[in-house]
Amino acid sequence: MRVLGVDPGLTRCGLGVVDGRPGRAEMVAVGVVRTPSDAEPGERLIYLEEQLRVWIERFQPERVAIERVFADVNVASVMTTAHATAIAILVASKAGLPIAFHTPTEVKAAVTGSGRADKSQVTMMIQRILRLAEPPKPADAADALALAVCHAWRGAAASRLDDLARTHAQAVTTR
Amino acid sequence: MRVLGVDPGLTRCGLGVVDGRPGRAEMVAVGVVRTPSDAEPGERLIYLEEQLRVWIERFQPERVAIERVFADVNVASVMTTAHATAIAILVASKAGLPIAFHTPTEVKAAVTGSGRADKSQVTMMIQRILRLAEPPKPADAADALALAVCHAWRGAAASRLDDLARTHAQAVTTR
Repeated sequence: MRVLGVDPGLTRCGLGVVDGRPGRAEMVAVGVVRTPSDAEPGERLIYLEEQLRVWIERFQPERVAIERVFADVNVASVMTTAHATAIAILVASKAGLPIAFHTPTEVKAAVTGSGRADKSQVTMMIQRILRLAEPPKPADAADALALAVCHAWRGAAASRLDDLARTHAQAVTTR
Repeated sequence: MRVLGVDPGLTRCGLGVVDGRPGRAEMVAVGVVRTPSDAEPGERLIYLEEQLRVWIERFQPERVAIERVFADVNVASVMTTAHATAIAILVASKAGLPIAFHTPTEVKAAVTGSGRADKSQVTMMIQRILRLAEPPKPADAADALALAVCHAWRGAAASRLDDLARTHAQAVTTR
């Protein structure tokens, strides 16, 4: 399953593409879209939209995983993060891709085993899981890869559960 | 000056178009874009984007005024409101229109004289200012019209101040 992970932000939006199957994952691409904070809000969103479209066209992910943001931190940055999230949802939906949201805690737990892991632990584990020669930088890039890995692994598990449920339902109905 | 006022929301997005000049304003159009809360987030944003584009094409506003939302209320609704705001910014910017943000307090003060006016006062004043036979409904529609009136009047005042400043600057430089 090829997943595009999006760590939404307007100043820096982390993007990571991963091919994953249970217990394994390979990096396809990683990067950060930056827009200058002194640019017009509309220009920043237009640029982010373009870049997301280019990434989806170039790397053809099957799913998009976006970090779920809560409004309990800095108010101003939460709003711009929410704006970037909306653009990611819009572009992914227009491309017909299923979208999933994962909290930072879910992502940390998926790649380190602990929902309370710190940033350096996540970066270290992502480097190991993806067998990268160097830790991905900046943090937004590592987070986007972690999101994609989290979704590829959890999504696979969820799909297996769906299959099980379907098999069971069939077993029941054909009895 | 023709202004499109946007009271952003995903369940209900109020839209109001007003032709305004200092002390006067006329309604051109008013409406509410609704998207079902059980639809996919992406489908809702795509529909809102389409409708905003249709409104801008049909009514040709010169400026767009959007309500500035703060993250101090319900967290979940603030996030969907922020998503709707991002779509409005994106569509308006793509159409090349200048965007302004006004707080609810500024809007209330502009149309009622008091930043602490309640919704019924705003609706009553908007009905009077625009000489409407009936109060605009629902509240999101009235708010969008109030935003457009606020911007048309404040924008005009701000432009006059700019002109004054420019005249003064010329006076200084030509002295």
